[in-house]
Amino acid sequence: MKNNRIILGIDPGTNIMGFGIIEIVNNKPKLVVMEAKQLYKTTTDSLEKLGLIFKETQNIIQQYAVTEVAIETPFYGKNIQSMLKLGRAQGIAIAAAIHEKITVEEYAPRKIKLSITGKGSSSKNQVSAMLEYILGFKHNGKQFDATDAVAVALCHFFQNSGISAEKKGKVKKPTKKASSSWATFIKQNPDRLKS
Amino acid sequence: MKNNRIILGIDPGTNIMGFGIIEIVNNKPKLVVMEAKQLYKTTTDSLEKLGLIFKETQNIIQQYAVTEVAIETPFYGKNIQSMLKLGRAQGIAIAAAIHEKITVEEYAPRKIKLSITGKGSSSKNQVSAMLEYILGFKHNGKQFDATDAVAVALCHFFQNSGISAEKKGKVKKPTKKASSSWATFIKQNPDRLKS
Repeated sequence: MKNNRIILGIDPGTNIMGFGIIEIVNNKPKLVVMEAKQLYKTTTDSLEKLGLIFKETQNIIQQYAVTEVAIETPFYGKNIQSMLKLGRAQGIAIAAAIHEKITVEEYAPRKIKLSITGKGSSSKNQVSAMLEYILGFKHNGKQFDATDAVAVALCHFFQNSGISAEKKGKVKKPTKKASSSWATFIKQNPDRLKS
Repeated sequence: MKNNRIILGIDPGTNIMGFGIIEIVNNKPKLVVMEAKQLYKTTTDSLEKLGLIFKETQNIIQQYAVTEVAIETPFYGKNIQSMLKLGRAQGIAIAAAIHEKITVEEYAPRKIKLSITGKGSSSKNQVSAMLEYILGFKHNGKQFDATDAVAVALCHFFQNSGISAEKKGKVKKPTKKASSSWATFIKQNPDRLKS
């Protein structure tokens, strides 16, 4: 059970930051923790909020001995102002991972949905329902910042489940073009359906 | 000469990052170093570039024993894509400063120009010429990423030159509303004009 992959998914925002951690045990994802940090409740100062994101991300990486970080990175937004804020939050989370010497990979929302549900235009509810099914937890159906974070962590696992290549000593470089998904995973792990 | 303020100005970009350091000696700014780091020459990978920004900023803070960081932060841009990239670069530089436990302050380009030249709509050439005059150096007149960084460092000094308050043990909190500028500085330091 040593040296399991522990994937931290982050849905970065300057007001609410979603964190989700999954552990890969015997090539199967298990939910470790999911949380939505409400940064706006701690401070209203924008630079202090960025400081909080940095420290929270660092703490989580250390506390759970995270081995990989996956970040949800939308490349569109309401307006230029919101994109600047979003970019800052992303940059801070990325910096925290770099500082902890953890590999970071980014995924667009559409890619994440496609990977989890098989459909890039799925609703947050549909993604959440599929996560509940795969990871076996019950979501309150209200706040999606934490489930979005779990989704990007799981998407990262599906994209990088080439364990065999790693066992041969070839460390597989994550690629955004891989088409691995829940569908592929279930094909390779038919027993998972029975559990 | 101990405990002088050493201000690092940063003009963050994902391709070129401007750094400028000024030291405040006897309440007068002296140029220590200015440089434009051409990140795109080292790597084309966007996450690696962010990693470089983090490490370069950390190195510079440590190497020059920086006491304060000032960042130029435009709040507009060509498009949503460029603002996301810019936000990321800003976020990374801010994270590096936070990690080194250095105070960070941000300034909009118009504020910087107003502080240096007395006019918020000054050209880069005009800002550069004023910097040459104040700090006594000769710029090549071509690349402005480094001079922009020196400008934000100097603007920060003008905005926070309340040395007297600090001497009385009241550490002055930087305020964006202060109207200190080159004009105010020269009024308080008439001898500077003769040098």
